[in-house]
Amino acid sequence: MRTETTIQGLHAALSPVRASRKSIGFVATMGNLHEGHLKLVQEASQLCDVVVVSIFVNPTQFGPNEDFANYPRTFEADSNLLAEANCDILFAPSTEQIYGEQPQKTTVQVNSLADDLCGRTRPGHFTGVATVVTKLFNIVQPTVALFGEKDYQQLAIIRHLANDLCFDVDVIGVPTVRAENGLALSSRNGYLSEEELILAPAIYAALQTIQAQILDASENGKIDFDGFAAEGRKALEKQQFAVDYVEIRNPDLTPAQIDQGKWVILVAAKLGKTRLIDNLTVTLPSA
Amino acid sequence: MRTETTIQGLHAALSPVRASRKSIGFVATMGNLHEGHLKLVQEASQLCDVVVVSIFVNPTQFGPNEDFANYPRTFEADSNLLAEANCDILFAPSTEQIYGEQPQKTTVQVNSLADDLCGRTRPGHFTGVATVVTKLFNIVQPTVALFGEKDYQQLAIIRHLANDLCFDVDVIGVPTVRAENGLALSSRNGYLSEEELILAPAIYAALQTIQAQILDASENGKIDFDGFAAEGRKALEKQQFAVDYVEIRNPDLTPAQIDQGKWVILVAAKLGKTRLIDNLTVTLPSA
Repeated sequence: MRTETTIQGLHAALSPVRASRKSIGFVATMGNLHEGHLKLVQEASQLCDVVVVSIFVNPTQFGPNEDFANYPRTFEADSNLLAEANCDILFAPSTEQIYGEQPQKTTVQVNSLADDLCGRTRPGHFTGVATVVTKLFNIVQPTVALFGEKDYQQLAIIRHLANDLCFDVDVIGVPTVRAENGLALSSRNGYLSEEELILAPAIYAALQTIQAQILDASENGKIDFDGFAAEGRKALEKQQFAVDYVEIRNPDLTPAQIDQGKWVILVAAKLGKTRLIDNLTVTLPSA
Repeated sequence: MRTETTIQGLHAALSPVRASRKSIGFVATMGNLHEGHLKLVQEASQLCDVVVVSIFVNPTQFGPNEDFANYPRTFEADSNLLAEANCDILFAPSTEQIYGEQPQKTTVQVNSLADDLCGRTRPGHFTGVATVVTKLFNIVQPTVALFGEKDYQQLAIIRHLANDLCFDVDVIGVPTVRAENGLALSSRNGYLSEEELILAPAIYAALQTIQAQILDASENGKIDFDGFAAEGRKALEKQQFAVDYVEIRNPDLTPAQIDQGKWVILVAAKLGKTRLIDNLTVTLPSA
């Protein structure tokens, strides 16, 4: 595995790859890698000739009261994991490489999608994500870019921006990797205390309960989207979660409509100071 | 010259160009070509192996009360001119090709620069420009992109966005082409009546006057930026212009500072219903 820390270095590394028309699979990460990231890398190596993984803790997607400064930075362990996985090039740029020396004036806005759900309590977050992903796409120029389905809204936004901005890239979502107890893997799980780690799988349990309720209700008549979401919220609140939202939406994140036959249930909730998100799709057998 | 009307067709045409690592020069136009455009094409053919020119009247950069519907569309004449010039590929996409079928949610904003000068009276204009240029850069993936210096603010915005968004492209400004009487060539000159065509060169004359005043004043002491701009405005208003602005700025469009030694004088003014813009740089011999 080759490690590049500058845009110029990465371009030099990728130049022969492009000239030989090999496909490039790209996985953008903020480091502190876990099995979820490695599954993205594995998938990329199956789909493409060359795998590029970036590690960049992007300051512009953190709010002023969020955990940018304390976000876990574990470069050496990450680098070892990627070398063992099928990563060909690790791109680990400095903030200066990505945000330059002149003051940045340009932002990429994915309107309406970015202000919804997590965007309601994290203003500017998805503009930070969309802007840095645009930069990284321009730097890496990948054939395929893979993102985890755990960050469902992020994936929806990146799909939209790639399409809207005419990027010549396939954006692929990769299923969430879970611990045995159902907890979705996330770097932020590392913030949880022992007690919180025991409580955290309740999010997935709540998602599964709603999924089952929807499937049951579809056989017996009315699917009460709002009612099921409200019950899910209550269940989590009883278990010490400060719930941001429990919502059921169409797959494209518009409000759930009965005739879709397929939906996504999304949860964001805090355990102590740690904000966790998860989601689960549900598809009627008839759909 | 090959003409492509779809993104897919353009990608196919450019695929062997990219594989052979030839450089691509790109000129984005809205058609109704004049000598100014052809100079961009000529410059592109000197700098690059392959020249791509786009003709696309971009709806999102026109305001609701602007001239999108009536903008001159002269495809056949344009195509002939480009074939005679050194254009290799003419890219002439439909609105659907560029803006897709799903509702667009993504915009590229170049903050502060986009709200200044022409942006004050044309809200959304430069966001439309920045967004379509981002799309076109992603579609064409040029080595070099050339824009006219006549649209000084547009050029500044595109330079900024290319740098901010890490596009691997050189943005090059090409000097304004003028008629013998000094009038900057522009498709919108075609809107001018015979009488207005006689008046229009007064804009360039005003720019030259201010340029001379600055050079004179620099020898005798104080350069009165605001005073010179105000005089230029008055001179134009006396000649039937409805002046939007006459401004003197640093080359990066920040407010003029005496220690720069180099500035740009910018004018936007309406003659009847036609809005004209022009600019002229001035550099002190000592700078």
